[in-house]
Amino acid sequence: MNITNSTLRPRYTSGEIKPSEVMAHVLGRLDDPDQAGVWISSVEPDAAMAAARKMDERIGEIDKLPLYGLVLSIKDCIDLAGAPTTAACPEFAYTPKASGPVVEKAIEAGTLYIGKTNMDQFATGLVGVRSPYGVARNPHNPGYIPSGSSSGAAVSIATGTSSIALATDTGGSGRVPASYCSITGLKPGPGALSGRGMVHACRSFETISIFAQTPADAFMALEVLAGYDADDCFSDPSYCLFAGDAASTPLHEMRIAAPMRSQRKFFGNRDTENLFEQALATAGEVFAGIEDVDFTVFLEINDLMYFGPFLAERDVAVGDFLRARPEAGEKVVRELILGSGSQTAADVYRALYGVAEARRRLESFWRKFDALLVPTVRTIQTVDEVMREPLESNFDNGYYTHFANPLGLASISIPNGLTPPGVPHGITLLVPAGGESLLVRMAEEFLDARHKRP
Amino acid sequence: MNITNSTLRPRYTSGEIKPSEVMAHVLGRLDDPDQAGVWISSVEPDAAMAAARKMDERIGEIDKLPLYGLVLSIKDCIDLAGAPTTAACPEFAYTPKASGPVVEKAIEAGTLYIGKTNMDQFATGLVGVRSPYGVARNPHNPGYIPSGSSSGAAVSIATGTSSIALATDTGGSGRVPASYCSITGLKPGPGALSGRGMVHACRSFETISIFAQTPADAFMALEVLAGYDADDCFSDPSYCLFAGDAASTPLHEMRIAAPMRSQRKFFGNRDTENLFEQALATAGEVFAGIEDVDFTVFLEINDLMYFGPFLAERDVAVGDFLRARPEAGEKVVRELILGSGSQTAADVYRALYGVAEARRRLESFWRKFDALLVPTVRTIQTVDEVMREPLESNFDNGYYTHFANPLGLASISIPNGLTPPGVPHGITLLVPAGGESLLVRMAEEFLDARHKRP
Repeated sequence: MNITNSTLRPRYTSGEIKPSEVMAHVLGRLDDPDQAGVWISSVEPDAAMAAARKMDERIGEIDKLPLYGLVLSIKDCIDLAGAPTTAACPEFAYTPKASGPVVEKAIEAGTLYIGKTNMDQFATGLVGVRSPYGVARNPHNPGYIPSGSSSGAAVSIATGTSSIALATDTGGSGRVPASYCSITGLKPGPGALSGRGMVHACRSFETISIFAQTPADAFMALEVLAGYDADDCFSDPSYCLFAGDAASTPLHEMRIAAPMRSQRKFFGNRDTENLFEQALATAGEVFAGIEDVDFTVFLEINDLMYFGPFLAERDVAVGDFLRARPEAGEKVVRELILGSGSQTAADVYRALYGVAEARRRLESFWRKFDALLVPTVRTIQTVDEVMREPLESNFDNGYYTHFANPLGLASISIPNGLTPPGVPHGITLLVPAGGESLLVRMAEEFLDARHKRP
Repeated sequence: MNITNSTLRPRYTSGEIKPSEVMAHVLGRLDDPDQAGVWISSVEPDAAMAAARKMDERIGEIDKLPLYGLVLSIKDCIDLAGAPTTAACPEFAYTPKASGPVVEKAIEAGTLYIGKTNMDQFATGLVGVRSPYGVARNPHNPGYIPSGSSSGAAVSIATGTSSIALATDTGGSGRVPASYCSITGLKPGPGALSGRGMVHACRSFETISIFAQTPADAFMALEVLAGYDADDCFSDPSYCLFAGDAASTPLHEMRIAAPMRSQRKFFGNRDTENLFEQALATAGEVFAGIEDVDFTVFLEINDLMYFGPFLAERDVAVGDFLRARPEAGEKVVRELILGSGSQTAADVYRALYGVAEARRRLESFWRKFDALLVPTVRTIQTVDEVMREPLESNFDNGYYTHFANPLGLASISIPNGLTPPGVPHGITLLVPAGGESLLVRMAEEFLDARHKRP
């Protein structure tokens, strides 16, 4: 059963199907083999069916419920009232009394909660294997990682057990799994969505993000979930998803930048390289052309994510817990987070100056270009490869993603075809925060053109 | 000779006096006893006279030179091309090829450079005694500190050897000496003035500031010096000195907050307490009234300045030098800055979260109040007292000042009378950044009313 909004909504409106039928279908799917490692907890079935039947009765209100009858999964670092939040660490779990504001909005808009999804512990990873709740299988080839940290969330969209998945993105967790699972990952700019009611990774620039099957579905959810939260000091009161002339500029006038060839890293994978070459060709036809640019300023920010002082934000969030209960932490995650102790206070300021200078230098870049186009990941990795080289594989997965949040960018990852092992590969478009509407229009146009290619 | 703009400009215009006569007068003053400890270096007299005579000839251009013929001193952490910048550390000195943009603007606007002023080394102090170049005397009672860190700058204004003094303010260095020396200290919000071409203290929130005899003189200079600098990543492109309705709201409608009585600390000094009581009475008549408020949120930020991770910014600026040449550092300054090594990277993020939360909590405060009124300092301190208790005395001097820059506030310190030992005491008004025009109107109104009181 296709449970995307574009399929369900007309069927709901015509009376062809009811939310309780969708819920019954999805509940029946949760023990299927493709759901192994996807869920940390799930809704109690009777309660879920009761909620779905209530939604059946509210069909007359569908015009006021923009997410009516859509199945919602929640990455398990985001609070849902009454359900444990584990952040993939059972010993860390707590049961919040209140839902995060983003969750509240999703439910008020008509979604049906199905479960909390698996993730790299404490959202520290881009691999999806750092969890005591198992490894979700890549839906296209079980030998490969689904990637992470929002692993379960991405697989639940790809396997049709969520219509909308709430994920998070600090260094790429809301984009990399979209690439591995052939779905849409929409990561708004920092400050668009409230960050209250979640286990923080890098609180100063992380963001809740959205997985869906299509850019349109993701954006529809984003519009519902975005909004200022006076109680979150990193929420931006002036955030607008339609900033600038985004909605009015014709797409064929859009100026696109891509990293120059010498900086396009695929680490020897000719398949992902070829797919990206095709994407460049498609984008070149759809938009005003592609210009190769120096990618250095973006790469300089990358190094701060897992080898620099940014890790210390994770220490603020969960360091005390890991020091008190070291055995409860996944080894790689614990060592990364507690390893931030080797960074000094001065190192943080040096990093913050570097980010401020990079943002300033990029002002002229963003006057010249409407978007940056990159592969979402350099290559595709197997579970075995990641287990053997847990740090390097992880950092490599973030080559095209780590810089986005520190630089205040919004981005979207969309599918761009399959590699020979059947594992998908995506592209990512990036724009300054507030350009989400533009991003989605560009993504749709690209996908249309991509599908028309031989 | 009175060398303020309000005195000199009409006399220049009428031809009654020439810049070269003013310069000759000031050059003749530099070896007077009241100038001891004020100057780290000064202009070569022949060159200064030549520059002044050139300015004499430009009298026809006075309408295009807003700071025509005003004598300019520069705190010795700000670069003037060709003159050594010491930051009060001779071993640290370098001779910059270019002036800082603020200095450039001041000179282009018609000022005449007279010298570089003494300061607490590396702008680390609110006392004025931490310098190998001696202690500038308090112009009103030589037993007392001039305070700092902009000690020489304030004394040069008070003793009539500068019309405009460029200072800096991180934790109060642009306000506390104004109080001790009975002058105006105008500290714009962070981001209003370029911070290029200076030895940084806390680069992320410090600001160059202005000393002058009157609020009007200080604001006139500020208008000339302010402006976006694309090459300073902390310069704010949208900064406006007349933000909001500042210039149009009648002063008698202004709602003023003051710390509640239990939080007004004078540390036993009934004289400064009485002076502030008088200031409250005056302000109550001039404005729409004074409301006592809880000062806690401001005080919480204070602790970060000299006991928290903010010190690590100073380490980024000069820590490597002090580690390589420890003997070159003034003991208290060196120990404070290098002591920041005990702060962790996580401590910085905790502090930054605290600042972000405080700013968010204060949004409703600033909707309710137009300005915060505080004493500039709690009490007045002698040189001996400060030598005995270098750390505590310094922190006490910042009780009413430390919080301003981290919280993004603009402020002005103005005279509020003399204590029995003859040492002045000032008040400070604070508003959100961009309210500088309002600040100056309020300060003038207050001073007018103050002078009319018996």
